[in-house]
Amino acid sequence: MAPFQCFDLPDNRASIPERLALLRARFQDLQAGALLLPRSDAYLGEFISPADERLAWATGFTGSAGTLLLLPTRAVLFLDGRYLVQGSQQTDPSLIEIVNVHLVPPQTWIRENLPPATRVAADPWLHSIAFLRWLEQAGTPVRRIESNPVDGLWLDRPPRRHAPVRGLDPDLAGEDSHLKRERLARLLRKEEFAGVLIASPESVNWLFNIRGSDTPNTPVVQACALLRSDGDATLLVDAQRLDSATRNRLGDSVHLAAPSALCSELADFEDRRLAMDPHRSPDRLRILAESCGAIVTDREDPVVMPKAQKNPAELEGMRYAHRLDGAAMASFLAWLDRRWPLGGLTEIEAAEKLERCRLETGELQDIAFDTISASGPNAALPHYRVSRASNRAVQQGELLLMDSGGQYRTGTTDITRTIAIGEVSDDARTAYTLVLRAMIRLSSLEFPEYATGIALDAIAREVLWRHGQDYNHGTGHGVGAGLGVHEGSFSLSSRGRNALRPLKPGFVLSNEPGIYMPGNFGVRIENLLTCEAPASAKCEHSARLSFETLTLAPIDRRPLRLELLQDSEVLWLDAYHARVAETIHPLCQSNARDWLRHACRPLSQ
Amino acid sequence: MAPFQCFDLPDNRASIPERLALLRARFQDLQAGALLLPRSDAYLGEFISPADERLAWATGFTGSAGTLLLLPTRAVLFLDGRYLVQGSQQTDPSLIEIVNVHLVPPQTWIRENLPPATRVAADPWLHSIAFLRWLEQAGTPVRRIESNPVDGLWLDRPPRRHAPVRGLDPDLAGEDSHLKRERLARLLRKEEFAGVLIASPESVNWLFNIRGSDTPNTPVVQACALLRSDGDATLLVDAQRLDSATRNRLGDSVHLAAPSALCSELADFEDRRLAMDPHRSPDRLRILAESCGAIVTDREDPVVMPKAQKNPAELEGMRYAHRLDGAAMASFLAWLDRRWPLGGLTEIEAAEKLERCRLETGELQDIAFDTISASGPNAALPHYRVSRASNRAVQQGELLLMDSGGQYRTGTTDITRTIAIGEVSDDARTAYTLVLRAMIRLSSLEFPEYATGIALDAIAREVLWRHGQDYNHGTGHGVGAGLGVHEGSFSLSSRGRNALRPLKPGFVLSNEPGIYMPGNFGVRIENLLTCEAPASAKCEHSARLSFETLTLAPIDRRPLRLELLQDSEVLWLDAYHARVAETIHPLCQSNARDWLRHACRPLSQ
Repeated sequence: MAPFQCFDLPDNRASIPERLALLRARFQDLQAGALLLPRSDAYLGEFISPADERLAWATGFTGSAGTLLLLPTRAVLFLDGRYLVQGSQQTDPSLIEIVNVHLVPPQTWIRENLPPATRVAADPWLHSIAFLRWLEQAGTPVRRIESNPVDGLWLDRPPRRHAPVRGLDPDLAGEDSHLKRERLARLLRKEEFAGVLIASPESVNWLFNIRGSDTPNTPVVQACALLRSDGDATLLVDAQRLDSATRNRLGDSVHLAAPSALCSELADFEDRRLAMDPHRSPDRLRILAESCGAIVTDREDPVVMPKAQKNPAELEGMRYAHRLDGAAMASFLAWLDRRWPLGGLTEIEAAEKLERCRLETGELQDIAFDTISASGPNAALPHYRVSRASNRAVQQGELLLMDSGGQYRTGTTDITRTIAIGEVSDDARTAYTLVLRAMIRLSSLEFPEYATGIALDAIAREVLWRHGQDYNHGTGHGVGAGLGVHEGSFSLSSRGRNALRPLKPGFVLSNEPGIYMPGNFGVRIENLLTCEAPASAKCEHSARLSFETLTLAPIDRRPLRLELLQDSEVLWLDAYHARVAETIHPLCQSNARDWLRHACRPLSQ
Repeated sequence: MAPFQCFDLPDNRASIPERLALLRARFQDLQAGALLLPRSDAYLGEFISPADERLAWATGFTGSAGTLLLLPTRAVLFLDGRYLVQGSQQTDPSLIEIVNVHLVPPQTWIRENLPPATRVAADPWLHSIAFLRWLEQAGTPVRRIESNPVDGLWLDRPPRRHAPVRGLDPDLAGEDSHLKRERLARLLRKEEFAGVLIASPESVNWLFNIRGSDTPNTPVVQACALLRSDGDATLLVDAQRLDSATRNRLGDSVHLAAPSALCSELADFEDRRLAMDPHRSPDRLRILAESCGAIVTDREDPVVMPKAQKNPAELEGMRYAHRLDGAAMASFLAWLDRRWPLGGLTEIEAAEKLERCRLETGELQDIAFDTISASGPNAALPHYRVSRASNRAVQQGELLLMDSGGQYRTGTTDITRTIAIGEVSDDARTAYTLVLRAMIRLSSLEFPEYATGIALDAIAREVLWRHGQDYNHGTGHGVGAGLGVHEGSFSLSSRGRNALRPLKPGFVLSNEPGIYMPGNFGVRIENLLTCEAPASAKCEHSARLSFETLTLAPIDRRPLRLELLQDSEVLWLDAYHARVAETIHPLCQSNARDWLRHACRPLSQ
């Protein structure tokens, strides 16, 4: 694992106007009046190789999502709610306008602002089939460009990493790859597909029970795959990246081919139906497949649902990882309570210590995302990342928000704790208590199997709505088992396609409400949950589901306003703390055990 | 208004096999292997003329929604959750299989059960553009038939009613028709449409400020209209149905044409974009428009949103109607408390009395839907309609559920009250208390303007989910202002397109959670609400909305288990009752006033 990295990038603000000018100079060659540049790679991933940070190169904005629309005299950066503040801090408003993508998506902005028939250049490796389709359906002529203009201009572009392909321990996978492929092939036959082209590396890694380290934070091999309706498959990865044991374990029904050989692999698909997920496949792959004669047909990536519904082995791996992670968190929190009274504790020091605590488990492969260590007003930015410039010493009377996670050998964690550094204000205590209530509200829910992510999202938020509060992000996201910490199979959110999916047993998800007071403080409390169907319980109308909490780390009791908690919420917290103490006590470093016992005592004590 | 009508239809069960056989005999002529027969009319309405009750003629099923798929040797009736029980009571299982349309919609059933390429005959007047498109996209060849085979076989088919067209009082409409049309025309121009073909009578009546009585329960003229992007319009209704005052008030920019003259009205649309709502327009209209050369383009009926967002005059009319209706309800409830102890009270007697109480306001035009009067186990069927056969005397110790509404001159009401007839069981009291809590939970909510119907639906249900309860229907539906009692512009529901719409100020909706214990009892409590934006309140992230309760009638306090109510819920109910008593007391019949005062006293008394 790389050591803790600050948010700082080489200060390239000075060169941004020049870079934008260089890109604009390419418009004529591109035969277009505008250029779209998303923060994306050819796998449409969230965690991308530094070689794919084209948006950061062009704009200075380093968030994990955003799209630049470059025009001859304007530049518009579309960002979601998480990144509006960061975007405005990292870019020069005289050069780049920022637009909230939820209020005005690019296709709308383009229709309302560009002269009709303005051709918009787009690199089809970096956009999904669905996105370019929306754009065209909204009446925008799209010019699909053969090579990305950034690549020719970016002189010190870092190299791409092609790490070895590892086989996943069968005990952790819980199901042989050939059985997974057989399951999916049956589905393809039933739906009369000749095959499916799977473009998402997380899906491919799950399907073949492989892992890698091509990108930071997500232990995957960046590869696509072709699964045929007879169960045979082609993994599009250079063969020299696998040792012979890994190659042999894949078996004869898996063919290896270089990514550039896709077309010859598709030779037998002429005039046959090939499924592709329009939201998870770059448009370039569709063009390639169609040029081979395949009849490309929309279908959700068939791996999405089985991967989201963790099997018992995957869940056991996740539970094991959460025990390790809980003990690491306890060590960190115990240290924190010893450290802050000495003064001068900075956000960076806290983040570095937390990463060391995880490393000391001996089973950490990587952190799951850049640790968020945000104190006082910095925590009011939900996705704040500390930089050398923003780094500050935590003051007594402030809240410190730590959002972090680990990629362990057996699974993935994601946890947020907000810690009182001494006595905090009544407003902060009220906010903290409300956020915990919202978190408990969801954790303790029983619900029918038709309940969607939008429904569960609202149930958590309602606690805050009644107090005039809310948060500008989702309540939860899917989490992979030793895969991406943001698994886009479903979400608990107030909007979006993924929030319309009903929850299923085996789903693993985050539960992370928050309250953010700009300039003042931020609170977020996050546990991971897994959805389970109690064997006995049955609702009148529909099977009932409930949650098991996976995360096992104390929740700071000190900022709570007990008079705002309902009795059932007190009972929930006491039972949770009893379980945390019992489970992680044996794993904790000895100097954290007393602290743990104290932190986990019942609220009545 | 017609006198109270029971649910009984001429007992035609004996003739059903014969009718199905006659229809099957037409398959060869229709060049199809199956026939779809929905409960619908050429306006895709819920309240349809008796002449359009083709599904009831063919199957005996008289519910307000359902679709028959007739095959050579099978007949499958697709029904939603409301009608599964009624459907199985009204049809012979050896003749007709019933399928839950939410679990298996027709397009899925057809794909999974019919031989590939089986042609399915459908009357394109009775299906939306969207439905036949789904069917075809799912791979089913659709044979659009020119005339409905039922029409030639149904010998005693009742005549269709063409009532006079009335102008709506400008004080009630609140906005001149020409201003409404100008608003929409601007939208059409902006979106580059040459016009819109509006197929929904409720939209047409709202747009032209007209009303009629062509169908029961909804005071509309059944008509389509064409609105051009210059604001001129054609109302497709026979001119002799308007008196000269009404005709003159429409003005010169409105042209009248017979419905059969649509094509000549569309003459200038050749190669121009014509908007049509694929969910609210029969496919036949699309075929007609396309045969005239128009480029038919999907767009939501532009009337839907302005009609849903009631203007101040419409809201005042609704409030006035609710005061009248509340007083009528109080008179009824007072009578009920005098009447039931005498014994022998039947469901029909209760329904007749309630309708008389409404009539006695002197301002009732029609009831808004068939009154639901359901006692004891009958109330466990959420959409029970009493028939001579099912009519029963209400027993002491039972709950009586009355769901009813009125079409008044100034607006539309819809209210459900569940009344304890003597002491009821603890289970019934618990259920009653939980349902009231869910109703209050929603009524008292403040929420951000992005909150959708799915989100609000879940917040009401959560109270029940925590106690293992739920209900198999939506939490709320839109309500028209002197238009349809079920206004399909949005819904509070766990699923469906309409539940994805965020609530807007001016929306009027029902709030009607319930609990149904088959064979035992049913509880539902329903108020109408209007959504409002408090002038001052602002959430951190988004404008805040809240509800004003329109319905003004006592909620029976006697079955409440006070120990299950939260303090805030007690306060809500006391404040509501104080407002009810104050507002409707002056309007109540004198013999109901003491009862009202008593029924509305605070819970602490």
